[in-house]
Amino acid sequence: MTDVNDLALRLVEGDRRALARAITLVESRRADHRVQAAELLDRVGRTGRQALRIGLSGTPGVGKSTFIESFGMMLVGQGLRVAVLAVDPSSARTGGSILGDKTRMERLTRERAAFIRPSPSQTHLGGVARRTREAVALCEAAGFDVVLIETVGVGQSETMVAQMCDLFVLLLAPAGGDELQGVKRGIMEMADLILVNKADGDLKPAAMRTVSDYTGALRLLRRRPQDPADFPKAIPVSALAEEGLARAWDEMRTLADWRRQNGHWAACRADQARHWFEAEVRDGLLARLTEDPGIRAAMRAMGEAVADGRMAPAAAADRMLARLRGLGVAEDAAGDRTGDGAGDESLDAPRVCP
Amino acid sequence: MTDVNDLALRLVEGDRRALARAITLVESRRADHRVQAAELLDRVGRTGRQALRIGLSGTPGVGKSTFIESFGMMLVGQGLRVAVLAVDPSSARTGGSILGDKTRMERLTRERAAFIRPSPSQTHLGGVARRTREAVALCEAAGFDVVLIETVGVGQSETMVAQMCDLFVLLLAPAGGDELQGVKRGIMEMADLILVNKADGDLKPAAMRTVSDYTGALRLLRRRPQDPADFPKAIPVSALAEEGLARAWDEMRTLADWRRQNGHWAACRADQARHWFEAEVRDGLLARLTEDPGIRAAMRAMGEAVADGRMAPAAAADRMLARLRGLGVAEDAAGDRTGDGAGDESLDAPRVCP
Repeated sequence: MTDVNDLALRLVEGDRRALARAITLVESRRADHRVQAAELLDRVGRTGRQALRIGLSGTPGVGKSTFIESFGMMLVGQGLRVAVLAVDPSSARTGGSILGDKTRMERLTRERAAFIRPSPSQTHLGGVARRTREAVALCEAAGFDVVLIETVGVGQSETMVAQMCDLFVLLLAPAGGDELQGVKRGIMEMADLILVNKADGDLKPAAMRTVSDYTGALRLLRRRPQDPADFPKAIPVSALAEEGLARAWDEMRTLADWRRQNGHWAACRADQARHWFEAEVRDGLLARLTEDPGIRAAMRAMGEAVADGRMAPAAAADRMLARLRGLGVAEDAAGDRTGDGAGDESLDAPRVCP
Repeated sequence: MTDVNDLALRLVEGDRRALARAITLVESRRADHRVQAAELLDRVGRTGRQALRIGLSGTPGVGKSTFIESFGMMLVGQGLRVAVLAVDPSSARTGGSILGDKTRMERLTRERAAFIRPSPSQTHLGGVARRTREAVALCEAAGFDVVLIETVGVGQSETMVAQMCDLFVLLLAPAGGDELQGVKRGIMEMADLILVNKADGDLKPAAMRTVSDYTGALRLLRRRPQDPADFPKAIPVSALAEEGLARAWDEMRTLADWRRQNGHWAACRADQARHWFEAEVRDGLLARLTEDPGIRAAMRAMGEAVADGRMAPAAAADRMLARLRGLGVAEDAAGDRTGDGAGDESLDAPRVCP
């Protein structure tokens, strides 16, 4: 039995072992763990501490691990505490895990001011989303200054990570101009900063060309009124030679400060919180179809009837939904009614800030 | 007030105006229309008629309209009745609609044995899916022999269409070998037949090369034990010169007959029906969050509390879900319990046959 009170205290003191244990708790699917996790999150959520949450995406081979190691070491050298989390939707299928091989970040792993957590292997992106968000909240409560959330370039996971970050950074390798299309437009549009890695040795000219190509491509995207005119931007870095990292950090802070001052930061966090609340309600509602043994059995029985042709899909769904009535919330909730029913469009579209 | 009884009778007699009106009814979001639509579907669903449902995908410019016109005219010439439906997820955003310009199928439009229905403009892919499935069922009840369901090459809509079809056909334009990657692997894997269009005039050599390229690419995909050894296959057609269409139809019938005989056809339709039942239950459950004014108001109020930082997202979601309890189905449904709770994995993954 976990002593949530004790765990919360040690976590807020910045104890890394407590943080690791707390994350394990929020990753658990056991019902009693879920209750404890909720209690823990509620308790530590009151610290009001905010880290700079940086989403970092890039396909395998661009040098994410090396970048995180070099960049993380630089931040630690400046007296900052750095947490690294990973979101890897592919690990569910392959059983593998990014960041799983901590030896690729040998120096950072040994730093007392750093915390590295590999991705949990989950079968469901919604589950990964919730657990990652909660892990981010725990890292903030533990007093980390920067939380890096790493993901691989496969679309949906980027969107998810961008929805829990203050800044979204895309790490790319040098490429020929015609490969520029390889980065999906949707991911380009999410990026606040593009870092072209491996700007060293033989690859330097190609890296500089790539920077210039992406600078051009970024200009074609919609301007963001809340940001300085030269953002989003592309710059060269070399994780290996540890060059350009200080500038990358400067750019990130410039953008973050700018957004803090014009209110965008707070508005974005508020929007994200609302989005995640709605997503959790939806996930929780759908979970009942599989978690409750009675409902699950009814779904299976009706599914068989539909498969056998004894019932039409729509008619069976109507009948099932009728059984799922008795929500009884319409009446209860009426007292909460605060407006004219407008504004519910926020229930539909997940949002990425900015 | 629609006389559902009369509409059902005329529909089953093959009356095209009744079919058009019935589809308008199932496309409506009005609650009273939904009730009538369910009644209509229930009534006409008992005919037991089955059309050959063919999904047809291809990016704009490959000649889908011309192909449908030529292919449809050939089928009509053989005494078959052909319905054409469209699924266009982009129309929600642009307001445009594929098949909207019926003049591009001038001849087919005038045929009494043909029925062409442009895509409804919807904001929600789930809604489009339900309406399209219901329209397909209506076309089958109206005695059409072939239902062509057209969509554009944008991923999600292909999967959706494949989930309501017996065969999935991909229409491509001639291309250089290096463009082969332009077709997403996921879509390739769904295709039963690849038709390389424009195999006429100057483009013929390029078309033949493309056929050979795709033949090679298809061999690399997993074999389907339920199909003849040479499927999926790629063949050349010219919609303009009306060449290769008879062969394309032969291939489709060969595959369909094969699957009918080995039971795959029936198993696939059963699987699809179950999948759509489950999808409708999920959609219906989520719809309550926005449709019920009380729930919507409560969601908005809690969303504001979360955005303001007065509540944590997870805590607010738990509270909302607690209010959404009283489902009271666990008890009721217990009587239906037919097994050990296994087999519920079917609730998660949408499936495409084969």
